[in-house]
Amino acid sequence: MRQAPPLLIIISGPSGAGKDSVIRRMKELGVPLHFVVTMTTRPPRPGEEDGKDYIFVSEETFEKVLREGGLLENAIVYGHRYGVPKEQVKKALESGKDVVMRIDVQGARTLRRLIPEAVFIFLIPASEEELVRRLKARSTEDEEALELRLAIAREEMKSLEEFDYVVINADGRLDEAVQKIMAIITAEKCRTKPRRISFSS
Amino acid sequence: MRQAPPLLIIISGPSGAGKDSVIRRMKELGVPLHFVVTMTTRPPRPGEEDGKDYIFVSEETFEKVLREGGLLENAIVYGHRYGVPKEQVKKALESGKDVVMRIDVQGARTLRRLIPEAVFIFLIPASEEELVRRLKARSTEDEEALELRLAIAREEMKSLEEFDYVVINADGRLDEAVQKIMAIITAEKCRTKPRRISFSS
Repeated sequence: MRQAPPLLIIISGPSGAGKDSVIRRMKELGVPLHFVVTMTTRPPRPGEEDGKDYIFVSEETFEKVLREGGLLENAIVYGHRYGVPKEQVKKALESGKDVVMRIDVQGARTLRRLIPEAVFIFLIPASEEELVRRLKARSTEDEEALELRLAIAREEMKSLEEFDYVVINADGRLDEAVQKIMAIITAEKCRTKPRRISFSS
Repeated sequence: MRQAPPLLIIISGPSGAGKDSVIRRMKELGVPLHFVVTMTTRPPRPGEEDGKDYIFVSEETFEKVLREGGLLENAIVYGHRYGVPKEQVKKALESGKDVVMRIDVQGARTLRRLIPEAVFIFLIPASEEELVRRLKARSTEDEEALELRLAIAREEMKSLEEFDYVVINADGRLDEAVQKIMAIITAEKCRTKPRRISFSS
């Protein structure tokens, strides 16, 4: 029996969908996947660890890596820069590991052009009320910033159809969302026509 | 959030792949699916219950139902007739239930033409040795019949690519195969572009 090639799983969704929570829970469960550590210029949130949750860098460092062609994709989200280290993804896939990556909706769109064979999962809250509550709970922003985030999130919700799968991440049901993502990975590994990732350097 | 439409899940594979065992285990687990009860003229195997595992009928009854257009698909497998009661499948889908159906490889091919939106799962043993052992264990046949079954099974293994998914049902790992099928169902329910079953009467 042939071995299924490694998968590249893209977890995206509007701000407040719970991408970080889902990834954190998957890590806690010790699933045998490589989680891409994104490079960012945004300051760490409480509990976030450098090199583990994100690679936190200065604007200068980010610029340097970007100039040297070291990022698979990069974007500015709410004034902060995010980038996917190319070599990290390539090496993990080459070692045969499935790779999981969290990325904003715009970034997912770019990746779909670059790597259409990836598995694109759209994470959403159960309702708009939930989305508002979550964005408010971050409470690092004033009313105006919150309104902007909400408007963008509403807009981003329309991108759903561009993804392969949609997973609802409802309040208090994080494990259900994680199980669905794991089921998607299991099912994708059973495809008779496997996706074969290839991206040029 | 829209409700995913019900799925029609076709479980097929060569004789000896363990289709019946997988279905029986799924029933034991009490998963909320409708399992199609196939009509057949073959005699019951030990432990099989009429109306539950199969609808066991005479040649005459089978012919009558077939003539009246009551079968979605029908085939002769090793001298016995098998048929899928059309109304049963339609009613279950109309009630919103996901429907699971076990069928031989030829039957699956016919159904793919009739209902391409169904989910086609190909069940296989872990190795040819396992297949031989299982067919022998049924021990209801002479050497010649066994050889014929084996030759057909080898031929059927080539149909793998026509299916959406392949699931290995290895000896002693039935639950793993069942979990993979359940994962496939979960993943299919998360698709952003749901399959919509429609079949004419």
